[in-house]
Amino acid sequence: MTDSETPAFLFDLDGTLLDSVYQHVIAWQRAFADVDIDPALWLVHRRIGMSGSLVAARVASESGRELTDAEVERVESLHGAHYQEMLDAVRPLPGARDLLLALSGADIAWAIASSSSRSEADALVAKLNLGMEPTIISNDEVSTAKPDPAAFLAAADRLAVRAGRCIVVGDAVWDVLAARRAGMLAVGLLCGGRSASEFEQAQALRVYADPADLLANLDEIGVLLD
Amino acid sequence: MTDSETPAFLFDLDGTLLDSVYQHVIAWQRAFADVDIDPALWLVHRRIGMSGSLVAARVASESGRELTDAEVERVESLHGAHYQEMLDAVRPLPGARDLLLALSGADIAWAIASSSSRSEADALVAKLNLGMEPTIISNDEVSTAKPDPAAFLAAADRLAVRAGRCIVVGDAVWDVLAARRAGMLAVGLLCGGRSASEFEQAQALRVYADPADLLANLDEIGVLLD
Repeated sequence: MTDSETPAFLFDLDGTLLDSVYQHVIAWQRAFADVDIDPALWLVHRRIGMSGSLVAARVASESGRELTDAEVERVESLHGAHYQEMLDAVRPLPGARDLLLALSGADIAWAIASSSSRSEADALVAKLNLGMEPTIISNDEVSTAKPDPAAFLAAADRLAVRAGRCIVVGDAVWDVLAARRAGMLAVGLLCGGRSASEFEQAQALRVYADPADLLANLDEIGVLLD
Repeated sequence: MTDSETPAFLFDLDGTLLDSVYQHVIAWQRAFADVDIDPALWLVHRRIGMSGSLVAARVASESGRELTDAEVERVESLHGAHYQEMLDAVRPLPGARDLLLALSGADIAWAIASSSSRSEADALVAKLNLGMEPTIISNDEVSTAKPDPAAFLAAADRLAVRAGRCIVVGDAVWDVLAARRAGMLAVGLLCGGRSASEFEQAQALRVYADPADLLANLDEIGVLLD
């Protein structure tokens, strides 16, 4: 970053702006149960934030079953249906809306980069009640999902900012790893249920509790809103 | 421990022997929603393993609501009802049954000490299909739940072993803190979704993935089965 550049923010969605991680875990459990797999749920939780196909394949493998591509697709689709049934209970995380509007108010560019499908991402963003249409890169817009850096690179591209100017904000270590692969810095949030040490090990720039905590401490990462 | 004493094991139940933590999180969300509280779910997850009344009171407080004793009781009871509906999906954790039977087979004493009610604990233990009636201290048998050491002290008493001989096995940092208050050692398991560093910070003797991993590595904590 040169002196004259302000950072741009790239936000993960599930577990970062919306409190949806625990619903995803239960939806995955139900999807796996439909194909007679009973994974230990902490292994599912660890994988949340990866693409659905990676979650399906890796969790099944850790439970002793190797899935065919068709089976992966089926489990993903079952997960989507079960998750849909739990969507009503998903709430914005504290400060999510305030943080995004504060950045917009200060003319700081931001976008959302999610491993979810476009329709799932849109349904979550609607809950934020932003009164504007944010830039969203969903899993429909890139061929490889996190921890591959494609989604973050596409989001930076859409904002027309170079990767080195971007700060990723995510609740999963996969966000941090994808950010580093993309040559970006990353801030970890604890509100997806992961621990500070996981983010520290992945060399996150800084770790905060949730969007409200990040908003209150933006000055710590050198971002001033006025 | 003197040379002649073999250790006795005291097991937490939810998240340690049974994969019930994520169901508890969703059941708490539904119970809080019934009284118009929308807690961030990672704060609920952090509190799992404490007594129900502590979870209710502390999570509500962290969400900006102070509950009366009657409200705490009501949220606890709502949680119990919602959890009951999800109980069918709760599975034993890998190795749970094998570990307990292996200890029994080697004449190593063990008991279960849970923050759940007696009826909830019995329903979970039935899923382990042990073919015997284990010693169980539930929240019905002690006046204060974890992180208070009462449950572990009562379990040691029931086994007629002194506290210093006991090794607690739990998936929550509250198990480790209660064990240390009781003058016991504690082993942390990752299968409740907490991270190794939390157990290390609480000075657990050792951390394993799940009961199967502990069973495979009992020699590391000086326990030989034959």
